[in-house]
Amino acid sequence: MKESGRKFGALSPCAACKLLRRRCAQDCVFAPYFPADEPQKFASVHKVFGASNVNKMLQELPEHQRSDAVSSMVYEANARVRDPVYGCVGAISSLQKQIDSLQTQLALAQAEVVHMRMRQFTFSSSPGAIDMAVDQAPMGESLWSC
Amino acid sequence: MKESGRKFGALSPCAACKLLRRRCAQDCVFAPYFPADEPQKFASVHKVFGASNVNKMLQELPEHQRSDAVSSMVYEANARVRDPVYGCVGAISSLQKQIDSLQTQLALAQAEVVHMRMRQFTFSSSPGAIDMAVDQAPMGESLWSC
Repeated sequence: MKESGRKFGALSPCAACKLLRRRCAQDCVFAPYFPADEPQKFASVHKVFGASNVNKMLQELPEHQRSDAVSSMVYEANARVRDPVYGCVGAISSLQKQIDSLQTQLALAQAEVVHMRMRQFTFSSSPGAIDMAVDQAPMGESLWSC
Repeated sequence: MKESGRKFGALSPCAACKLLRRRCAQDCVFAPYFPADEPQKFASVHKVFGASNVNKMLQELPEHQRSDAVSSMVYEANARVRDPVYGCVGAISSLQKQIDSLQTQLALAQAEVVHMRMRQFTFSSSPGAIDMAVDQAPMGESLWSC
């Protein structure tokens, strides 16, 4: 947790109080998370969520969760500033497409492994077949069951 | 786009104007996206983003993008209500972990396919080897290159 904005007390307001042009009290809820030297962090959440909502959301959380909450709000706000139509949801949609594609590729690769094992098994167990040098892993065992 | 809240004009305010206790004008920016019969949609975005920010964000977008923007804001707001610490970012983190796991599984399955093909290739090209019944796909070809 950066507190560089607090070292001179009320003389150096945090980024939030500076933007809101208000006195930065000793117990300011924003100060531990919005240091004066990172003004962009508060500017983004202020633009997207509004200072009053950020204040309310932080007050409703126990202190040990506030730093994570601020990080996620800053991430979300930056995503909304970059993409005003989809924001974070654009990233979620793109990740879900990537998962669909990976699942398809994985199913194909797994099917190919099963197919090749079946062929090897059929061949090695046919009468007169030579002792194959190919590994014969048990059919129930899977390399991808990690 | 649902406009059920508009059918009686100013007599039936949209969900936003109802919550904000204001007159719902004919050109209300909220009305096309927040019908009176879905009050929860506006309640969520109001709680997380604030009515004034939602209004501003909608005004800054061309009309054909506003419906998507509202949907993504409602999704994001609901995620933040459910998980006040991580919101949507929690879902992003979980999807990214799923992608990492799928990529590992895919790499293992692909390595197994390559390994089995190499064994088959080595065996079938050794002197005196019998004509294998196993398919010999070209080494450069990959089933998962879809």
